[in-house]
Formats: sequence, C-alpha cells, structure tokens
Amino acid sequence: MTRTPLIFAAGVFYPGGEHITGWRSPAAEPTAYLDIDYYTRFAQTAEAGRFATLFLADELYVWDRFRSGIDHGVNVRLEPFTLLSALSQVTSRIGLAATVSTTYNEPYHAARKLASLDHLSAGRAAWNLVTSASDEEARNFGREAHLEHATRYRRGAEFVEVVNGLWDSWDDDAFVFDKRSGRFADRSKLHVLDHRGDHFAVRGPLNIPRPVQGHPPLFQAGASEAGRDLAGRTADAVFTLGGGDLAGGRAQYDDYKRRAVAAGRTGDDLSVLPWFSPIIGATAAEAEERFRELARLTPDRVQVDLLSHYLGHDLGDRDLDGPFDFEFDLDSFNQSKSGYAAIQSLSAQGSFTIRELAWEVLRRRFTLGTPDTLAAHLIEQYEQRAADGFILMAPTLPDTLEAFVGEIVPRLTDHGIYPAEYEGDTLRDHLGLARPRGRYAA
Amino acid sequence: MTRTPLIFAAGVFYPGGEHITGWRSPAAEPTAYLDIDYYTRFAQTAEAGRFATLFLADELYVWDRFRSGIDHGVNVRLEPFTLLSALSQVTSRIGLAATVSTTYNEPYHAARKLASLDHLSAGRAAWNLVTSASDEEARNFGREAHLEHATRYRRGAEFVEVVNGLWDSWDDDAFVFDKRSGRFADRSKLHVLDHRGDHFAVRGPLNIPRPVQGHPPLFQAGASEAGRDLAGRTADAVFTLGGGDLAGGRAQYDDYKRRAVAAGRTGDDLSVLPWFSPIIGATAAEAEERFRELARLTPDRVQVDLLSHYLGHDLGDRDLDGPFDFEFDLDSFNQSKSGYAAIQSLSAQGSFTIRELAWEVLRRRFTLGTPDTLAAHLIEQYEQRAADGFILMAPTLPDTLEAFVGEIVPRLTDHGIYPAEYEGDTLRDHLGLARPRGRYAA
Repeated sequence: MTRTPLIFAAGVFYPGGEHITGWRSPAAEPTAYLDIDYYTRFAQTAEAGRFATLFLADELYVWDRFRSGIDHGVNVRLEPFTLLSALSQVTSRIGLAATVSTTYNEPYHAARKLASLDHLSAGRAAWNLVTSASDEEARNFGREAHLEHATRYRRGAEFVEVVNGLWDSWDDDAFVFDKRSGRFADRSKLHVLDHRGDHFAVRGPLNIPRPVQGHPPLFQAGASEAGRDLAGRTADAVFTLGGGDLAGGRAQYDDYKRRAVAAGRTGDDLSVLPWFSPIIGATAAEAEERFRELARLTPDRVQVDLLSHYLGHDLGDRDLDGPFDFEFDLDSFNQSKSGYAAIQSLSAQGSFTIRELAWEVLRRRFTLGTPDTLAAHLIEQYEQRAADGFILMAPTLPDTLEAFVGEIVPRLTDHGIYPAEYEGDTLRDHLGLARPRGRYAA
Repeated sequence: MTRTPLIFAAGVFYPGGEHITGWRSPAAEPTAYLDIDYYTRFAQTAEAGRFATLFLADELYVWDRFRSGIDHGVNVRLEPFTLLSALSQVTSRIGLAATVSTTYNEPYHAARKLASLDHLSAGRAAWNLVTSASDEEARNFGREAHLEHATRYRRGAEFVEVVNGLWDSWDDDAFVFDKRSGRFADRSKLHVLDHRGDHFAVRGPLNIPRPVQGHPPLFQAGASEAGRDLAGRTADAVFTLGGGDLAGGRAQYDDYKRRAVAAGRTGDDLSVLPWFSPIIGATAAEAEERFRELARLTPDRVQVDLLSHYLGHDLGDRDLDGPFDFEFDLDSFNQSKSGYAAIQSLSAQGSFTIRELAWEVLRRRFTLGTPDTLAAHLIEQYEQRAADGFILMAPTLPDTLEAFVGEIVPRLTDHGIYPAEYEGDTLRDHLGLARPRGRYAA
C-alpha cells in the first residue's frame, strides 16, 4: 500500500497566532478577530495550500488567573462549531476540525453537531477530543475543581464510544423518502444504542442520518500515558509536541503506531502530526531576528505567568533572576501532564534562572529557518518516519501562513511528497482513511 | 412612539413543513433535507420577503414512541446553530434564531454560541428558550424521566439570568487592541459573574466580547402559567398558538402585555407572534381541496399516534370510531401543558370519535384562504392588537413560503403595515428593540 502523502492541519488557538502576543506583530490585525472575513482569508489560504484540515483549538474560560492574561492576552475566541460552519460555506475542500471537551459536553450534542457539520460541508467535519485541563473551566460548569486526570480520560474514552454508537443509529441506506408509499425510513435500519456506562446513560437514536464520512475523523493531542493509550485505541490522527531531535521524533512516532497495532488496528490508521511553528526568514539570521522581535513583544510578566500556569504554581513573587529550583510532582499534578513533564525535562538540562527558563520554554515552541531549511526539515521528518504530517501553529497570522503556503509548500510538492491538487472529496480521503461501515450493516 | 411594523418569523420544525407528512406533498423535496442549498433557498426567500428572522424549532430525540413516527415522520433534523451559522454566510439581513433547551444545556455554552453567531452575522442571532417536553429527551442525557414542569421553568429562568450575565462579562469598550502599549483589554472593564443559584454555579467571565446586539433577542413559546410568567419577565417575543377568534386573540395578547408591564417592562418590550400556518388557494374551494389532499397524505395511524403523544397516553388499541372519552388530568401531566389543555378544550366542544378528534386537532393548526382573505386576516389581527406579527409555520415547503412571499406579502406592504425594505441592520432593529447597555457600564 502506498503511504498517504504528507498531511497538514492549519491550527488556530489565539486568532493572532500561536504566540500569545503574536497579535502585536507588524502584520497582525487584532481588530479583525471577530470578523468572519479574517477567518475566511485564513481558511482560503490554507485551502490554496491543500491543507487537509483547519483545526480550531479551544478552551472554555478566560485566562484570568494572572492579571497579565487580561492585559496582554487575546481573550477573543469564537466558538469552534459556529465558526467552522460559517467557513463551510466559503470553502469547498478543506476539513473543519472542532475541539470538543469531553469533560464539559454531552455526547448526544457532540455527535449531532458533528453529523450536522459533516452533512453541511459534504464530508469535511472532524473533532479534536480534549479532556480540558483547568479548574477555571470547571467553575464555568458547576464544579469547584477539574476532574482527576485518570477519571477524565475514562470519561473521554466512554464519550467516544457513545458518539460512534450514535452515529450508527441509522444505517446508511435507512432513509427511503418514498412519497408514494409514505415511507420515509426503513424501520429495520434504525438502531437504539441504549448505552449505560460509568459516565453516561444515552438511549439514542440520533436525530440525524449517518454522517457523510460515517464517522468524522477523531483527532487527539493527549501525550500523557492515558492520552497516548486513548489515541492508540480510538484516534485517527494525533497532534504531538514533536520529539526534539530526529531520534526522539521517530521513537515517539513508533510509540503511537505500536499502540494502534496493540489495539487491533494498523499503524496507518493513526497519523502522527507533530506541532510545527515556524519562524521563517530569508536567511537564518533574519529568522533569528524575527524570533527576538517577537519575544520582545511579550512582556516578562506574561512569560513568567505562562510558566507559572504550566506548573500550576505562581512563581510571580520570586526573584526572576534567581535560580529555578521548583520541586516537580507529576503524579499529583492535574492540568496537562505532558506539558509539565516537558518543562521538568528541559529544566534538568542545565541551570536556569526563572527568566531564562521562561524564555527557553517560549523558544522551544518554534522552529527557525529559511524556506529551504524548513522544507528540508519537514521532508526529513516525513521520510524518516518521525511524522506523517504536521499541525502548523503559525506564531503570527496572517503572515506566517501566507509565507508557508507561498514559499514552503511548493518545495514539498516539487519534492514529490505533497499533493499538487486535492485528490479525494472528504476529509477522510485527505487523511488516507477508509469510510467505516455502520456497526449493524448487513 | 410609533408602533413597530408587522413582524414575521419564518419557522421550520420538519424540513418539509409543519405538517408531519408535508414531505409527501407535490412540491416537497425530501431528498434535499440534508442539503445546505435547500435551506439557503428557504432563507433567501424569507429574506426577499423581509422576514425579521428565521426560526429553527428543535427537539433532542427521534420520535420513536410509535412505529408510525419512524415509518412516516421526518427524522432528519440539522442542529440549529450549525445550520444557522452556515446560513449567516448566504444571507445578510434576516435574523437567525436557534432553539435552546434550558433543561439539557449549559448556560456557558449557550451564551458563547449565541455571542459567536451574533458576531459572525453582524448582529442577527437570537434564541428560543424551550424547557423540552419528552421523557425520550431525558434518556439521551442521562436521566430516566423529564424534569417536573415547575422545576424546569425555574431552571429556565435561572438559565436566562446566567446567560444575560455572561454576555455582560466585558463592557462594550473593554477591548483596546493597542499594539504599541501591548494592552489588549482594559482590565477594569472585565466582570466576573460568579453566579451561584439553585440550578447553576457559573463563575465566568465569558471568553468572547459582548454580542453585537448586547443581548441577542430571546424568544419563547411557553403558554402554560409558568411559561407566560417567564415570557412576561424575560422574553423579547413570544410565539403563541393564537387565541381562536379575534376576541380570544386580543385577550391572549393583552395577557402577555400585562405580564410584561407587571414585571416592570413596557408592553412594547414583548412582541406577540401567533402561529400562522396558511393553506393558500386561488379560491376558498381550492384551499379546502389542498387541505384535504394534505390530510389524505397523513395515514390515520400517524394522526392517532400524534394525538396519543400530545395526551401522553396511547389510544392505539382503542376503536378509532368509538367515542373519545379520555380523562384529562392537567396537573399531573408533564409534557407540553398548553397543547394538552388545547385538546381538552377542543374535545369539550362537541362529541368526537377518536378519529374525528385527531382530524380536528390537525385541522385547527391551519388557516385556509385566498391571498386576499389571508392578508385581510393578518391585517385585522395586527390592527386590532391580537398580534404584533406572526410566526409562519408553512404546512408544506418550499411552495407555501414562496406563495406567501409572492402573493400575501405585497398586499401587506400595499396596506402600509409591512416594510418595503429592511430598515435597521440587526435583528433587534427588525423587532423594534433598543440595544441593552451592559449592567456594569458607567
């Protein structure tokens, strides 16, 4: 079997780009962050670059744990389904992936919205499962504190099971629409799920026909042990933080593929898409200068508060130029365990002041280079099987996406690993995934 | 103050029209019920007719209580926000009203989706509060039975309070987007709701700026005592079943206006929009024949099962030609109390067989006439203050909406009570409502 060509997802978390103060960059257009035209340009640029999908990251709260988050952060976030559904009407090929928190949603609503978006977009919907990570989110939904890590992953796994089951409520050929006989549907092709589990009791059936794609693809980004396990069993693609050097990336890639195989699937059923946040310059020196410019736009306060946030511990009253001597305790930490572990690992690599570590955490998010070196990096990662593709988290928008599509994409196409045109029609096609049959289909 | 001109909302419950087997009518296009183009034509036709808003009714289950519902009913229902958001991109003036069940949703999600749709549509979003009515819905959300009637209305009232509070999280001028200073927002203009009530605990703030309309308009249709009370206190418009004759309609209209005044508002703050489901013929005889044709498309089984549904009691094993001798007990009934009461009142008006009563219930939903008589009816209702406008629930689609816009709307415009062009920009403008200030604004 031929390997699926290189895959790109165009991610957005902050509307101004992945960098929290990317909205201050010269090309940024912060007054347009509520404007559908801004997102339309983003989607159409990504579609011109044959991206498999848009990908809307999401959180269910305002980052007000620190004052700097209100003063300087981008607290403007359109709801993913509403935005993607609007974008379905101004695009025709690119996928539309919405983040869904399985901790603060109901599977019936999620299954229905995804099926609806899939029908409205002729087979381009997808979802990104997150379990959420902050107590602030819990407090917007009637709880004082966030669910414990293992519990929220068990709930997430059950959520997926219910959603998949609801999508199969009606066989693909259940609806006959026969005006003459008056038969709208064939009753023998309707199935009542009647799910009763530890976290959900959902009878079904779903009140919409089976999605165009059967099951819209499932993305995940969990990198903890529980997260990797869930991805191996259920995800169609996983976003990773990358594995550092090539050997690390290959090891991470192999780990995910192995987990898929262990779950009775094939390695091809799960695409591995590392995070890629390029800072592009005509020369290496220009890229470096761009990074420094961007870093200068981020007040120290924001960098340290972000570090405090990732660690679940406020470092703000310490001397920023004193040593970083934090006591890590991964087991009892209840936000993103993988982000926490990455900082632990980084801090062990040398001796840092708090300010230096905050800077280094920021720096590690980006890959600096020229179009040639960045393209070569992507090609190597793909060919050496450290990646099946990438999620592009542009540090600044709209300029980085435009430069990527204009200068890097053509190099990948010339190299023969990236398509010159969209081939299939649905997002599953773009990801090289077959359409699953209904579980009850004869 | 001048009275707001006549208002129309274009409703959809079944995609083929309000009549459950309208999908069998000659003009119906049942194979298009998942097709965005079908809904685009609907929305654009309504917009050509200067309708204030689209209105998507909704339920959260498949009507499988009776086999006939699966065999003959239209169990294809796109999720309202997904559909309306897509339609926001192919329309420019018409409102976009989505039904939200306050029993099976979280206020944070609802506030956010409505704010998002309002920004994406430049001020055209609205919501229709329902408390849901069926045990089947409960079973899709982890409960065995539906909440008791009074409880679900109390929950609904608190839901509105939380949503309005979340919308005011940011003052209108809270965002400054100042690249030079790095200030994105003015912290003094952010407010933490910290709601703690009987049904919800929601800290806030909402992660999206205040909606274009301040508060997207709130529609309701509750007609029970609890429903009317909630509408009087909180709704911007109420959909009613109409009050029968003109005197009944005026009494109902006055009742709603009185309740608004009693709640410290003005009568103009609450528009009363009776249900209007016209069967249009070139002559009265032709309209009558159309009704009979449509009724013939509805199998007896469906008519009786619908009646059984409204009564919460299966009449299916009785002799359909035997007398209807049902024992009503409104107090203990837990679905739609107003629908139940309407059947009780109708059945007391004569002696009916089950079949006759089912037929009569169906018939009462429609108003038969010619363009002249129907226009005269609407004008009288408006001028005599039995209505501020109407929700058009076309029995069949797309033909009835097209005929209404083509033949009835021009008569209303000629009469001077219906606008020849959209005047304002937002849905609040179309409804004659001022934009509310944020509760904290100086």
